[in-house]
Amino acid sequence: MPADHPEVQRLSNGILAAVAPLPDLESASFMILVPRGEIDDRPGRCGEATVLVEMLSRGTEHLDARAFVEAMDEIGLDRSFDASSEYLTISGSLLPRHFEKGLSLMKEMLAAPRLDPAELPAARQLVYQSALAIDDDPAEKVFVELKRRYHPPPYHRPFGSFPEEILQIEIEELREAARALPSRDLIVAASGKIETEKTLSLIEKVFTDFPNREPASFPQISPERKSGAEHVEKETGAQVQIAAAFPSIPFSDPDFIKVSLATAVLSGGMSGRLFVEVREKRGLVYSVRAFHSAFRPYGTVYAYAGTTPERAEETLRVLVEEMVRLGEGVSAEELKRARTQLRSRVVMSLESARARSGTLATDLFYRGRARSADEILEEIAAVTPEGLNDFLANHPFRDPFVLTLGPEWRKR
Amino acid sequence: MPADHPEVQRLSNGILAAVAPLPDLESASFMILVPRGEIDDRPGRCGEATVLVEMLSRGTEHLDARAFVEAMDEIGLDRSFDASSEYLTISGSLLPRHFEKGLSLMKEMLAAPRLDPAELPAARQLVYQSALAIDDDPAEKVFVELKRRYHPPPYHRPFGSFPEEILQIEIEELREAARALPSRDLIVAASGKIETEKTLSLIEKVFTDFPNREPASFPQISPERKSGAEHVEKETGAQVQIAAAFPSIPFSDPDFIKVSLATAVLSGGMSGRLFVEVREKRGLVYSVRAFHSAFRPYGTVYAYAGTTPERAEETLRVLVEEMVRLGEGVSAEELKRARTQLRSRVVMSLESARARSGTLATDLFYRGRARSADEILEEIAAVTPEGLNDFLANHPFRDPFVLTLGPEWRKR
Repeated sequence: MPADHPEVQRLSNGILAAVAPLPDLESASFMILVPRGEIDDRPGRCGEATVLVEMLSRGTEHLDARAFVEAMDEIGLDRSFDASSEYLTISGSLLPRHFEKGLSLMKEMLAAPRLDPAELPAARQLVYQSALAIDDDPAEKVFVELKRRYHPPPYHRPFGSFPEEILQIEIEELREAARALPSRDLIVAASGKIETEKTLSLIEKVFTDFPNREPASFPQISPERKSGAEHVEKETGAQVQIAAAFPSIPFSDPDFIKVSLATAVLSGGMSGRLFVEVREKRGLVYSVRAFHSAFRPYGTVYAYAGTTPERAEETLRVLVEEMVRLGEGVSAEELKRARTQLRSRVVMSLESARARSGTLATDLFYRGRARSADEILEEIAAVTPEGLNDFLANHPFRDPFVLTLGPEWRKR
Repeated sequence: MPADHPEVQRLSNGILAAVAPLPDLESASFMILVPRGEIDDRPGRCGEATVLVEMLSRGTEHLDARAFVEAMDEIGLDRSFDASSEYLTISGSLLPRHFEKGLSLMKEMLAAPRLDPAELPAARQLVYQSALAIDDDPAEKVFVELKRRYHPPPYHRPFGSFPEEILQIEIEELREAARALPSRDLIVAASGKIETEKTLSLIEKVFTDFPNREPASFPQISPERKSGAEHVEKETGAQVQIAAAFPSIPFSDPDFIKVSLATAVLSGGMSGRLFVEVREKRGLVYSVRAFHSAFRPYGTVYAYAGTTPERAEETLRVLVEEMVRLGEGVSAEELKRARTQLRSRVVMSLESARARSGTLATDLFYRGRARSADEILEEIAAVTPEGLNDFLANHPFRDPFVLTLGPEWRKR
């Protein structure tokens, strides 16, 4: 396994510079994580964060949209701009010799974006189109409908909830949002063919004059999670989409590794319980899965399956039964397989600069520190069958909120 | 860039063993490509190839379904089994010390599959479910509808065309199909932390007693390609899905690299013409793209966009105009950017054993030989602006067949 020694340094404006070199690779990657997400969208403006990143990508004070794209292409910067619930991310991969130039362009974009009103109609329209496209993708739509109902404010308005609001967004609102982009806890993470000291200095040099601003305060949420079941009828789909949310712990919880191992027992590969019970033995569905996701204050384990109306009842029953049954414990053999899977995921992440800069940034965001691959492997190795089963007995996956989407199936 | 020296050797039963070590990596990967695809499905059995791989994965003569899964999990074999138009693929990644065991299990599965009738109902059902799921994914469905109409026999029945036929498949049909799996031109490609000579010998040792069988003959197809436009009404979607097929050359054509460069000018990244003209300037769609695909006898360049009914006419017009306009040539600047993109794709493929074993197998299948990364980079470097523009003038992307799917839009 390649050595992995992440280093983190805080700049005077509160920005976190984080570096984890992977010198065997040929390319370098960065992820800039800005702690301003969909939860910070103003009321009646669901989609603002997505329009904001789209508009940010359209130029700086000094470079108009066309010139900015050409400047990025000239250095072969393979980039993506994304908005999610709690943050925006700007990711890039490029050759090491262009690293400083790439980072400087991204910093200019964030600190002095152009936000040209002439670009807004096209930007709004295409974000609107992407929200409408979710309507045509039932496997994605079912999660939008689930999350709208399950999550407490401010997490209750996932992208795609209210497409029409996107068209209401005005340039002044985006300018205000851009002027409020925080420097404190903004993360600049880098990996690949780079050197630790040199790259930390480089990040400091590029980002040191980023305006000093505080992020919004940590969201206060209700401790209650919703349970029960609802159906959203959509006569046009062939399948019933089934999604369920089970309360869980956040990434920052020291026991979180046990949730990872538990979801791997359920859904990690072809001997996962859900795969075997729902797919292989009964042929109820083609794809079934469970996965963990979290916001800073709390976590959620989601389960998903899509099937015909005739099989929806049995599929939902087996799905929930298998989730609940995990509380009765897992076998030593299952834990061993789950460990192998998590371990290989850690090792493989060291073969990609893009993956490593991403895990570096999110680790810092959710845990406040950057773990090395060795540290994660030790966490995995330290979980005993007894430890995992004690945890699962005390934190069973139960009392889900279930949302089904598609043809009516309950009367059958 | 890591060194890349692919080596190929033919076994006495016609199997091609191919190896391209990437010793910097920690894992090893293989891809077994069996030249038996959906085009070999018998009449009235659309989906047979997919049910066949699903059933192959359910055990060998010596290991029942459960024992087979456990044997694969025990060595941490991360695998996938797929059927496509012209071949089946079995891909796996694992630690180098388990490589021989993994390969042996896969060979047993192909040479002596269990094909247990008790497994068939579940296997058929889940493949059926996956075909139905395409109905609920308009962006995928539009390509099934396009391909059914555009491609000549035997390429005219892509997976998902006739879901009901899946339920008709009988165990004797699968047994017959399994007994006919060809050895000649079956490809076993390996990459990652392996040694050339040792691995070639290992593949020979494992596969030498695979029964000697000939593949089906090379498909004879009509030289005519369909053009025109059709609409498939589906009132339930929010968007109109637009897909177009333009005739092109096969992978084996020495000019193929020019098609790759041309599609990169159209659709490679954010300064691609389609991205700029359809998305950035006009905001007509969120995602738009063009890409090349090919069967052995001929190639196709596909274009795709999804938009609202009100914008469908303009989107389709701009999309086709941009494709046709490529015949007027590209600028030196555009060629330079396209080259950079293709080059970085080649370099990055050397950072993944899975990707490299995949390109090794498909290169052998389509071109009859395995190119090194250096050879591909030389091909890319050798294309001049004049050479590319001459080619595009003689092979413009025109006379497409267009299929739209979704709400009626033509009367608006």
